[in-house]
Amino acid sequence: MADQVMTPVDKEMAGFAHAEIKQRGIDLRLGVALEAVEFTPEANNTGKLALTLNNGNTLNTELLIMSIGVRPETKLAQEAGLQLGELGGISTNSSMQTSDPSIFAVGDAIEDTDFVTGKSGFVPLAGPANRQGRMAADNMLGRSETYQGTQGTSIVKIFDLAVASIGKNEKILKREGIAYDKVYVHTSSHAGYYPGAEIVSLKMLFSPDTGKILGAQAAGKDGVDKRIDVLAVAQRAGMTVEQLQHLELTYAPPYGSAKDVINQAAFVANNILKGDATPIHFDEIDNLTEDQILLDVRNPSELANVGFIEGAINIPVDQLRGRMDELPKDKEIVIYCQVGLRGNVAYRQLVNNGYKARNLIGGYRTYKFAKA
Amino acid sequence: MADQVMTPVDKEMAGFAHAEIKQRGIDLRLGVALEAVEFTPEANNTGKLALTLNNGNTLNTELLIMSIGVRPETKLAQEAGLQLGELGGISTNSSMQTSDPSIFAVGDAIEDTDFVTGKSGFVPLAGPANRQGRMAADNMLGRSETYQGTQGTSIVKIFDLAVASIGKNEKILKREGIAYDKVYVHTSSHAGYYPGAEIVSLKMLFSPDTGKILGAQAAGKDGVDKRIDVLAVAQRAGMTVEQLQHLELTYAPPYGSAKDVINQAAFVANNILKGDATPIHFDEIDNLTEDQILLDVRNPSELANVGFIEGAINIPVDQLRGRMDELPKDKEIVIYCQVGLRGNVAYRQLVNNGYKARNLIGGYRTYKFAKA
Repeated sequence: MADQVMTPVDKEMAGFAHAEIKQRGIDLRLGVALEAVEFTPEANNTGKLALTLNNGNTLNTELLIMSIGVRPETKLAQEAGLQLGELGGISTNSSMQTSDPSIFAVGDAIEDTDFVTGKSGFVPLAGPANRQGRMAADNMLGRSETYQGTQGTSIVKIFDLAVASIGKNEKILKREGIAYDKVYVHTSSHAGYYPGAEIVSLKMLFSPDTGKILGAQAAGKDGVDKRIDVLAVAQRAGMTVEQLQHLELTYAPPYGSAKDVINQAAFVANNILKGDATPIHFDEIDNLTEDQILLDVRNPSELANVGFIEGAINIPVDQLRGRMDELPKDKEIVIYCQVGLRGNVAYRQLVNNGYKARNLIGGYRTYKFAKA
Repeated sequence: MADQVMTPVDKEMAGFAHAEIKQRGIDLRLGVALEAVEFTPEANNTGKLALTLNNGNTLNTELLIMSIGVRPETKLAQEAGLQLGELGGISTNSSMQTSDPSIFAVGDAIEDTDFVTGKSGFVPLAGPANRQGRMAADNMLGRSETYQGTQGTSIVKIFDLAVASIGKNEKILKREGIAYDKVYVHTSSHAGYYPGAEIVSLKMLFSPDTGKILGAQAAGKDGVDKRIDVLAVAQRAGMTVEQLQHLELTYAPPYGSAKDVINQAAFVANNILKGDATPIHFDEIDNLTEDQILLDVRNPSELANVGFIEGAINIPVDQLRGRMDELPKDKEIVIYCQVGLRGNVAYRQLVNNGYKARNLIGGYRTYKFAKA
């Protein structure tokens, strides 16, 4: 059983969903499966349900809603002798033809081509289904339209939180052996001084070789759909993270920032690609060695208010130039701040002064929600 | 004096702003200039202002706010002997160097390259200024970053209405002699059955030769920034309206539709490019000839509720197949509905049955707001 909700995103990004769900008072149990359901009838056609979980726990309830995934319904296709794919969907080509060229298939029961890997994919979503339908109709009537692969763009609203993604997540990239690099940014959905701004937490996966976008995931209460849409277009257009820096997006205080979330993510990615930043990621922080020192460059009030990582030295970034000699040059300084920006400033200061350093990409916020 | 507000958009799109402004009780005067201001002092350092307009009218007020445009401040640059451009800004190359290569200039006082025309442009906006500053700093310190042109992406909030645009408007395309075609769509910002959906009114200008996006303008109370951002990315990536059909954007009922506004606009554009639709535009409707007949395919209740165009025959689209013989085959049937969709259905029916027809792109809604 998965140790996260929302498997299209990676676990640390699902943490934003976990936090929202728990904050709403829901008893969220991860990594456990339902093993048995027992119904005890009561008067007036009512009754009680006893749920046995695979960790031995029991839950009593009056209502059980099972939401256990999607499988393609292919009975008709199988009886017609049509070929199925490895994932169990009806095989189609880019003209939406099945293995019988006079039979077309579209929508939730088919396999089409994954935009990133070029392999067969199964993505039962309304957007692809609609466009496939239009193309199949065109092709049946003599046109020649080509379906151009599925990115798997998706979004879900969990109470007030939006969680969205495109392309491949890190789990899949690892499994497929596709080389990737990644960045996290947490940036305001619009200018902070205009009411209603919310943090957009964005993870972007890209190729270290070509700079192309492999996938992206975002969570937040405002502007998440817009940022994933921007990346959906950029990915489909084959843009690189270098090109993302130049995107010229709408800016007025109610709608965005002069440097949008996407520009910021591109800046961080390019800092890494150009060698201007040496990243460390959230899942390495709990396993630092004797040769590494953890440095928190936030202000003491932030540590008190939002928490900190045990064992960190605290030198606020604004004091770092004057206090640099408190740090050893023979160890690697692992820097973190709240979201990664001040950490980058500290990183540049230390490296320019002959220190070895790495900066936690996405800062304490990524580290913290990964555990949510 | 302009007969519209918001000159970055064309007049018919400014109509949405005019309607919003008037609906809020503001006395909007277009096409008139302020000719003289006379101050009559009163007690306690107060006073009254008499404003004389160039149409002879006079207005009395206690407060005058003049918002009369932006001109580059180039005094320092001129005194330094730097070259200015035709538009009055400081000339820069793509490295942000002025005519003196050791002096860099960025921001609101410079001219850079227009993304669409390749000519010198003057776009004093915060987004370009920020990215230019970053690049100039990099280049000063030995890097080689290239500014890649300004699209002029902009957005304004007028009460609850957003008005946004990218690229070139129709006025400029005409003036520059650039061939273009255009479409209008009015589509829900997200699934209509989920609360809070608002109509996004979108105008898209594209090259009839290459299919590339030349410009876009949108107005509405929800999701306008997102759609212009999507087109800003697509334009910068050099995508065609054919490719826009395939965009896979976030869809869940609170955020979008399975066929997004942008997909819909692309479908309409491609119908025109493929010859599946023969368009007529709002500004031709008031000048129909004896050889044209105006056909309103909406339901009678809509005509009563939202208005109609004088002289139109009304046959609802659902009755058209049975009542087609009421229409003459020797005249051109100019079809309109509310936004253009049912008009397209009617157009296909009529043309498939041997009629000559054109469909009003954007329907009655475009026609009506063009007069607002």
